[in-house]
Amino acid sequence: MFVKNAWYCAGWDYDVTQAKASIVARKIAGERIVLFRKPDGGVVALEDRCAHRQAALSRGRKEGTGLRCMYHGLKFNEHGKCDEIPGQAVIPERACVRAYPVIEKDNWIWVWLGDPKLADPGLICFSVGPSHPGWHIKTSKMHVKANYRLEIANLADLGHLAWVHENTVGGSRKYCEMKPKHTLRARGMDTQYWLRSIPPTAAVAHLFPPDMRVDLSFDIQHTIPCNWIMHFRVFAAGTATEGESNGQLLLDSYTCQAVTPRDEDSVDYYYAWGPSNATDAPGLADMLKDTLDIAFREDADVLEAQHIRMQEQPDRKMLDIGLDAGPGKMLWLLDKMLKEEAAAATPAGALV
Amino acid sequence: MFVKNAWYCAGWDYDVTQAKASIVARKIAGERIVLFRKPDGGVVALEDRCAHRQAALSRGRKEGTGLRCMYHGLKFNEHGKCDEIPGQAVIPERACVRAYPVIEKDNWIWVWLGDPKLADPGLICFSVGPSHPGWHIKTSKMHVKANYRLEIANLADLGHLAWVHENTVGGSRKYCEMKPKHTLRARGMDTQYWLRSIPPTAAVAHLFPPDMRVDLSFDIQHTIPCNWIMHFRVFAAGTATEGESNGQLLLDSYTCQAVTPRDEDSVDYYYAWGPSNATDAPGLADMLKDTLDIAFREDADVLEAQHIRMQEQPDRKMLDIGLDAGPGKMLWLLDKMLKEEAAAATPAGALV
Amino acid sequence: MFVKNAWYCAGWDYDVTQAKASIVARKIAGERIVLFRKPDGGVVALEDRCAHRQAALSRGRKEGTGLRCMYHGLKFNEHGKCDEIPGQAVIPERACVRAYPVIEKDNWIWVWLGDPKLADPGLICFSVGPSHPGWHIKTSKMHVKANYRLEIANLADLGHLAWVHENTVGGSRKYCEMKPKHTLRARGMDTQYWLRSIPPTAAVAHLFPPDMRVDLSFDIQHTIPCNWIMHFRVFAAGTATEGESNGQLLLDSYTCQAVTPRDEDSVDYYYAWGPSNATDAPGLADMLKDTLDIAFREDADVLEAQHIRMQEQPDRKMLDIGLDAGPGKMLWLLDKMLKEEAAAATPAGALV
Repeated sequence: MFVKNAWYCAGWDYDVTQAKASIVARKIAGERIVLFRKPDGGVVALEDRCAHRQAALSRGRKEGTGLRCMYHGLKFNEHGKCDEIPGQAVIPERACVRAYPVIEKDNWIWVWLGDPKLADPGLICFSVGPSHPGWHIKTSKMHVKANYRLEIANLADLGHLAWVHENTVGGSRKYCEMKPKHTLRARGMDTQYWLRSIPPTAAVAHLFPPDMRVDLSFDIQHTIPCNWIMHFRVFAAGTATEGESNGQLLLDSYTCQAVTPRDEDSVDYYYAWGPSNATDAPGLADMLKDTLDIAFREDADVLEAQHIRMQEQPDRKMLDIGLDAGPGKMLWLLDKMLKEEAAAATPAGALV
Repeated sequence: MFVKNAWYCAGWDYDVTQAKASIVARKIAGERIVLFRKPDGGVVALEDRCAHRQAALSRGRKEGTGLRCMYHGLKFNEHGKCDEIPGQAVIPERACVRAYPVIEKDNWIWVWLGDPKLADPGLICFSVGPSHPGWHIKTSKMHVKANYRLEIANLADLGHLAWVHENTVGGSRKYCEMKPKHTLRARGMDTQYWLRSIPPTAAVAHLFPPDMRVDLSFDIQHTIPCNWIMHFRVFAAGTATEGESNGQLLLDSYTCQAVTPRDEDSVDYYYAWGPSNATDAPGLADMLKDTLDIAFREDADVLEAQHIRMQEQPDRKMLDIGLDAGPGKMLWLLDKMLKEEAAAATPAGALV
Repeated sequence: MFVKNAWYCAGWDYDVTQAKASIVARKIAGERIVLFRKPDGGVVALEDRCAHRQAALSRGRKEGTGLRCMYHGLKFNEHGKCDEIPGQAVIPERACVRAYPVIEKDNWIWVWLGDPKLADPGLICFSVGPSHPGWHIKTSKMHVKANYRLEIANLADLGHLAWVHENTVGGSRKYCEMKPKHTLRARGMDTQYWLRSIPPTAAVAHLFPPDMRVDLSFDIQHTIPCNWIMHFRVFAAGTATEGESNGQLLLDSYTCQAVTPRDEDSVDYYYAWGPSNATDAPGLADMLKDTLDIAFREDADVLEAQHIRMQEQPDRKMLDIGLDAGPGKMLWLLDKMLKEEAAAATPAGALV
C-alpha cells in the first residue's frame, strides 16, 4: 500500500544524463517508470510500458524531446502522447502512456505518482543537495530488501543507534534514553533532541583524545513516504543541560535521505551527508559518506532479516515499547493518508 | 494454455544420441518428458515421472529398448509399460507411464502431446534441416523467459525488424510499411511479401558496396504452436515493382525456427539458417547462424521485459495497431484451437 | 505438516560454540530458532524473533546467560523472558519469546517443538556420537531441497541401494529382494535383515580380492520425525543362511543420521558413520564418512527431482509396490501422530 499523492525520490540528478543510452528504468511504489532528459536538460518521467503491448520503453531510443519504443517503433512525446505509429497514418486518441509530474530539486529527481492536479511542488521536502554552495555534501545509494514501513520505523527512532551502529555512528546507551520531541506535520514529523556529554562514536573516535566528550544536536524532518532530513551538529561538550550547547561547534552538517519503495518488498535508498563550509576539512565529507555506506548496510542486514520474519508471520501480535513513539506517529500518519486516499471520491488509484 | 493435439519440437536430433548418458529431460507445454534412443536409433518419448513415486526417469538407465528408473529399479519399455518391478513377481496392469508419439523429421524431434489416435505425421510442418542435401543449414538454440504467445506475435510481424534488429537483420523503416499477404490455414498462416530496393542490413552491409540496394522476398509458413519456416531470398535490386524481382539472385535461403513452450513462462527456441548450395560460399552459413544468435538475443531482451510487464498487468487494456494483423490472426487461430480442444467431448486433457 | 511433540535434531554440538559470534540461526519444522551456549556451556534455544518487532535475535549479542536483540536492545534471559528494555523501566509481562526445551545427547543438540510439559528426554532416539569411547565416528551434514517425507521413505527401504548407490554403497540387486523385518514402535520402526554372500560394494571393492563375498547385517532404528540409526556389520561370507553369520567380523559400525525438516521444501541432514574400536583401521572412519558424502548427494539428486515433480502434481495417483512396506509403515505412523496432535484437546500448535 502506497500513498499516491506524494513526491517520490527517483534518484540523484546525475543518475539521468544527456547520454544517448541514459534511459533509466525505475520501479517506484509498484509503478514502472522510465526517466530521460530532453535536449534542454529537463527530465521526463513516463510509464515504462508501451501502450501497444507493454514493451519496456526504457529499452527505447531518445528522439528529440520524446522516446521511441524500439519494439514496433511507436514514438511518445514528453507528455506521453503517441505522435507516430510506423506503418499507419491514423494515431488513435488513446495511444498514449502516462506522464508523471517530475521536478528536480536539491539534486534529487522527484516524481508525483497521483493526480497531477494535486502535484504541488511546495510539498517536496526541504533538503540540502551536493550542489548547495554552503555545504559539502557527498552522495550514495543502496538497495534494501525490506518493506518501506520498516525503514520508516528505523528512521523515526534513533534509539537503534545504540545497538545496530555500535561500531559506526552510535554505540552509547544514551541513544535509548533520549526523550525526543516529536511534532506531527500534515505530511510528516519533526523531531528534535540533544545528546550531551557522550564520547564520539566509533567511526570518528580516532580523531579525538580518549577523554573527549561531545554534545550532539539532532533536528529532523521526516516526510511521507520516507524522506528524512537531519540537521546534525556536534559540539565539544558544554555545560548547558538544556537549549543550545555552549561548547565549541565541531561539525555542522546535513544528512539527507530518501527511501523510495520499489514495491512491498524492497526500497531504493538515496542518501547523502556533509559538513557546512565553515566546519569542513579535507577528507571529512568523504568520511561521512563512507560511514553511511557502512552504517546503512548494518541497518539493511537487520531490516532484511526482519522483513523475512514479518512476511512469515504478518499477523503476529507484537510488543510495543516506549521507543516506538516516533515510529508509531509516522506509521499512524502513513495509514491515515492511505485511508484518506482510499476514501476519496475519485481516488488517485483510478488514474493508474 | 496449450494446444495438446499438436506436434511440438523437442529439439535437434543431435541433442539425443546413442550415448549411455544421453537421456534427455524436456519440459514441453508443462509436461515433463524424457527422450532417449533405442539401439536401433529410434527415439522414445516417455513421461518423465516414474509411475511409483514420481522419480525422474531422466535420471535412469537405458536397458535395451527400455528405461530403468534408478530409484527403485522399475523398468519401462518403449511403450511406457512397466516390465519389471525388482523384488516382486506381479506387475499391476496400471504400472505404466505415458508414452508420446514421436517422429524425427528434418533433423528435428517432434512429440505429440494429445490423443495418440490423432497423431497424424502429415501435420508436422514443412522444414529444411541441416541434413538436407540441397541446402547448407546451420543450427542453434536459445532459452527465452517469455510466454510463447509473445513469440508468436513477434514472428507473425516482421515490422519489428526495423527497430529491434536495426544493427543486425533489419533497420530499414520499410519493414513497417510492408503490406504482407497473410493466408490462414487450418493450423497456421502463410505470409508473403517483398521489400524492394533497400540497403543490405547491418549484419551484411560490409560485404557490399555502399550504394548497393537489394530486393528481399519473404515466404513464411507459421504453424501452431509456433513453428516458423521462411524461404528468404535476396536479389540485387531489380526494376520490377511487383511479382518476382528481376535482379540477380544473391542468396536463396531457408531459416527454420521452432519455438516450444516449456510452460507459461519460457520457451526453448530451436532455429537454423542457411543458403542453397547454388548460392553458398565459404563462411556464409556460419555467418547466418551467428547472426541469428545475436538477433534472437535482441528479441529475447525485448520479450523478457515485455513478459514481466504482462505478468504484472495481465488484464491491462492495450492498443491495437495496423501491424497487429499477422499476430492477431495467429493468436486468434491459437485461441480457436484451444477452445475447440476444451469443448471436445473427450478432451485430450483427460488423457494426461 | 510436522509433529510438534517430538525431539528434532538441531545439529552437531560443535556447530554451537562458546565463541562470541557463535549464535546459530536454524529453521526447524517451520520455526525459526536461535541457539547459543551460556558461559557454563549449556545450550539455549529461543525463538529467533524479537518480541518487539520480529528482528532476528540470531543477529544479537550474548550477555551472560541471555541474548540481547541488537536492534533496540531488548535483552532476553535463557528462559525467553525479557529482563531489559532500554529506555524504559517497566517490562510488560508478555515481553518474552518462546524458549524451547533443548538437550545435548550423543553430540547432537535436540530441540523439542511442542508442549514443554511433554518433553521427555527418554524419547530421544538411541545414537552413537563421535565422542563415544567405543566407536570411531566421523560426522558431516548436507542441505537437501526435498520434503522430509521423501527422506523418510528413502531411509525406510534400502532397496534403493541397488540403483541409486550402484557405484557407492549398494549395487547388488539383492537389496531389492531382501525381506526386511519391520517392527513398529510407538514413535518409530525397527528393521532388521541380512544380505548374504554378496560382493563388497563399489566404494570398498578395491580393498578386497575380486572373488571376495560378504554377509551384511542391518539393524535399524527409525524414529519420527526422521532419525535413523543403523548398526551395520560386515562379515566375510559364512555358511549360515539364517541367524548370525559365521564368517569373520570385518566391520562393526554405527551410522547415525538425523533428517530435520527446515520447512516443507527442504531438510538439514546431519549424519555420521564409523567403526568400532575393535574393527577400526587407519583411514577407515574417514573413508566411511566420505562415502556417505558422495552417496547422500546421489540420494539428494534423486529426491530433489522427485520433490519438484511431487510439487507439480501433488494429487497424482501413484503406484504402490512391495518395497513400500517400510516407507508405508513409517509414513502411516507419521500421519497417525499428526492426526493425534491435531485432534488433541489442547493442540501443541496453540502454543506457537
